[in-house]
Amino acid sequence: MLTNTVEEGSLPNRFRKLWDEIAPIGRDPGSGGYLRYALTEPELRLREWFREQADLRDMPVVADGNGNLFAWWGDPDAGDAVLTGSHFDSVPHGGAYDGPLGIVSAWLAVDELRAAGVTPTRPLVVGAFVEEEGARFGVPCLGSRLLTGQIAADRAGGLRDAAGVSFAEALGDRPAGADPALLGRLAAFVELHVEQGRALVDQAAPVAVASAIWPHGRWRFDFTGEGNHAGTTRMVDRRDPMLTYAFTVLAANKEARLRDAHATVGRVAVEPNATNAIPSRVTGWLDARAAEPDTLTGLVEAVRAKVAERARRDGTEVTLTEESATPLVSFDGGLADRLAGLLDAPVLPTGAGHDAGVLAAHVPTAMLFVRNPTGVSHSPAESATDADCAAGVTALARVLEELT
Amino acid sequence: MLTNTVEEGSLPNRFRKLWDEIAPIGRDPGSGGYLRYALTEPELRLREWFREQADLRDMPVVADGNGNLFAWWGDPDAGDAVLTGSHFDSVPHGGAYDGPLGIVSAWLAVDELRAAGVTPTRPLVVGAFVEEEGARFGVPCLGSRLLTGQIAADRAGGLRDAAGVSFAEALGDRPAGADPALLGRLAAFVELHVEQGRALVDQAAPVAVASAIWPHGRWRFDFTGEGNHAGTTRMVDRRDPMLTYAFTVLAANKEARLRDAHATVGRVAVEPNATNAIPSRVTGWLDARAAEPDTLTGLVEAVRAKVAERARRDGTEVTLTEESATPLVSFDGGLADRLAGLLDAPVLPTGAGHDAGVLAAHVPTAMLFVRNPTGVSHSPAESATDADCAAGVTALARVLEELT
Repeated sequence: MLTNTVEEGSLPNRFRKLWDEIAPIGRDPGSGGYLRYALTEPELRLREWFREQADLRDMPVVADGNGNLFAWWGDPDAGDAVLTGSHFDSVPHGGAYDGPLGIVSAWLAVDELRAAGVTPTRPLVVGAFVEEEGARFGVPCLGSRLLTGQIAADRAGGLRDAAGVSFAEALGDRPAGADPALLGRLAAFVELHVEQGRALVDQAAPVAVASAIWPHGRWRFDFTGEGNHAGTTRMVDRRDPMLTYAFTVLAANKEARLRDAHATVGRVAVEPNATNAIPSRVTGWLDARAAEPDTLTGLVEAVRAKVAERARRDGTEVTLTEESATPLVSFDGGLADRLAGLLDAPVLPTGAGHDAGVLAAHVPTAMLFVRNPTGVSHSPAESATDADCAAGVTALARVLEELT
Repeated sequence: MLTNTVEEGSLPNRFRKLWDEIAPIGRDPGSGGYLRYALTEPELRLREWFREQADLRDMPVVADGNGNLFAWWGDPDAGDAVLTGSHFDSVPHGGAYDGPLGIVSAWLAVDELRAAGVTPTRPLVVGAFVEEEGARFGVPCLGSRLLTGQIAADRAGGLRDAAGVSFAEALGDRPAGADPALLGRLAAFVELHVEQGRALVDQAAPVAVASAIWPHGRWRFDFTGEGNHAGTTRMVDRRDPMLTYAFTVLAANKEARLRDAHATVGRVAVEPNATNAIPSRVTGWLDARAAEPDTLTGLVEAVRAKVAERARRDGTEVTLTEESATPLVSFDGGLADRLAGLLDAPVLPTGAGHDAGVLAAHVPTAMLFVRNPTGVSHSPAESATDADCAAGVTALARVLEELT
C-alpha cells in the first residue's frame, strides 16, 4: 500500500497512484460521495495514512493536542517554517477533492522538491487540520480555530455530534487550545484546494491564487408551534412551525438575490417528523455570505424581520441564533501578487471558508485553487482532472521553493 | 403488577389503576410522549400485558398471523361475535391515549358486564391491531388492512422501517394476509378512541358516536436538484430542491384553507442535510383530508400543478407518488343512530383514519370518542380525564351489552 517516494512515471500518473490509495476510504457506494466525518473511522484511517506518508519521507509528525497533525521537514525549533496542507474530513456525501487534494498535493510537492535536489532553508511542514467542514460537531474550521484561540478549548471540547459524543470524547482528551508558540514558528501558510465554482473553467486556467474569502456565517432558526394531529386539527386552530420554516427558506433566497449575495437553507430538523403530525418544532440553518460585511448584515436582518412577521401570522415562535460568523478575510496582498506573478495565474475571491481564512489573521497566508470542471462542490459531482491536479502540485512546489 | 378483576373502588379509580400499569411503557422522559412503534420492545411489552389481562379474564388469545391479537369471551366458532379494541402503537412522541384507551376501556367494559352479571349471548372479543399509525413501516392500519385483504401479504411483509428491517422480519414470519373466515365470524366492531379535536369540549359531552371518516391520503413529493456548495455557487446557477419543497408547504396550506380541507407537510428528508451544502434531494410528505372525495382530489391536483410550475422556475424535478389513499368511510348509519340514542351522545365526523375505518367495509362498525380537553392529538399534550375515561367505559359496556 505504501507509495515509493521516488515513483517512476509522469506527475499525473504519480498523482493518480497516490490518490488511489485513499480514494476508497469512506466512500459511500450508493451516492458515490464521502462520509469522512472528523475522528470517525474513515477519517482516522486517513490520519493513519498521513503518518505513513510522513514516515516514508522521514518527516516526524507532531500532534498539537487539538486534533491537527503536522509533519516536519526540518527542525521545528528553527522557526520561520512554511506550512502547507488542508483537511481530510468531508460534508455528508461530499466530493473526493475538497480537503484531501491539498494534503496529497503537499506530499507530492515535497517529492518534487527532493527530486529537484532542493534543500529548503526554512522548515517545511505538511499539516492536516481536523473538522474543517463542521459536519460532525457543527463549528467549521474547528482545528484551526482551536490552534489560533478563536474558539475556547472548553467550548470546543463540549461540542457534541448528533449521537451525543463530545469533541473531547472523540479526541480522547480535552483539546489543548491556543498554541501561540507553534503559530510563532510559522512564516507562511499555503493551502491548495479544489475550486468550488466555475471561474477557472471560464478563464481556461488550471490554477488560481486566492484574493479574499467573503464574510460568512451560520444562523440557526428555531421555530416552535404546537404538535397536533394532521387529520383532525382545523387549519384555523393550527400553530404549524413548518409554515414559518418554509417561508424562511423562500425569504432568504429572495433577499440574497436582491443583494447579489448567497443564502442557503440546506439543513432542517423536524419534531416529530411524522407524516400525520403537525410538527411541534422545526429547526432550519441559514448559511449566508456576501462580498461585503454590510451586505451580509443587511441580508440576515431582512430575513429576520420578514420571518418575525410571518411567525406572528402563523402563531409560532421563532428564535435566531448566530452559530458562527467569519469576517471578511483578505489574504496577504503582497504574497498573493507575488505568487500570481510567479505562477502567471489569475487571482480570485471565494465564498467558501477555509482553515487558511482562520490562519490568515495570524500568519501570512495564501491559497491556490485547482480547476473543477463541473464547478460543483460539496457533492460527489465535484471533480478535477489528473493533469490539473499535477499542475497544482507543480504550482505548489514552486511556491514552497520560493517561500523556503 | 396484575390487576384484580374484581377491584374495589369507583370506576375512575379502577380506570386509573389499570391505566397506570402501562403508563410508563415506552414513555420518553424528555418529551413526555410515547415511542411505541409496532413490534419494538415497548409495544411487545404492551402485547404481553394484553395477554396477561386476557388470562386474568379467562379469555383465550388468538394471534391472527398478521400481528393482530384477539381475546375471546365465548366460543370463536359460534359466529356473530362482537369485537372491540384498538391499537397500542404510537406516532413518534405521541400521546398516551391514542389507541391504548380503546384496549384498556375494553378490559374494563368486560369487567363491568361481569360485575353486572351479564352473560353475552354472542361471543365478545377484545382486539389489538398492529401498526395502526404507520409510524414504523409507513402504511397506517397495516394490521386491519392485512386482515381485510386491503393490502397484499407480500407487499406488507416487504415494507421496511428506517433501519431496513422488514415487517415480515419484525413479525417473525410472512404475514398471513386476508382472513375472510375470521371476518365472517364478526357481527360488529366497536372502537373506542380519544377524540382528536375539540368538538366534545365545545358540546360539553364526555362521549360521542362517529358518523364518518373523511377521505384522506398521503402523497410523497420527491424533489431533485443539484447538490452544491452553499458558499461558492451563484444564486443564478443553483437548482435547489429546498426552494421547491418550501413552496409546496405553503401552497398545500393555502389550497387547503381555500377548500375548508386539511393539508399538512409534517415530514421531510434532505440529502445531504448539511448547513453548507445546497441539497441534491428533498422529500416531503403531504397529508391531505377533506369532507368530500372531490374536494380532496381537487386539493391535491391544485398543489401538484402549482408545484410543477415552481419546479420549472427552480430548475428542479418533482415527482408525486400516492403512498396511501383511504376513501370516505360512512359508518353504519343505523348502528350509529342506535348507539347515539342509547347513550344520548352527539354524532361527529372525524378527519383521522382508524382500523374501524378499514373494517367498516366488511363488518358493521361504530366508533365512540372520549372527550380530549386540549383537543390536541399525536402529541404529549393529548389528554382525557379519568372521569371521562370512566364515562367511556360505561358507554362501551352499554353498547357491548346491547350488541351481544
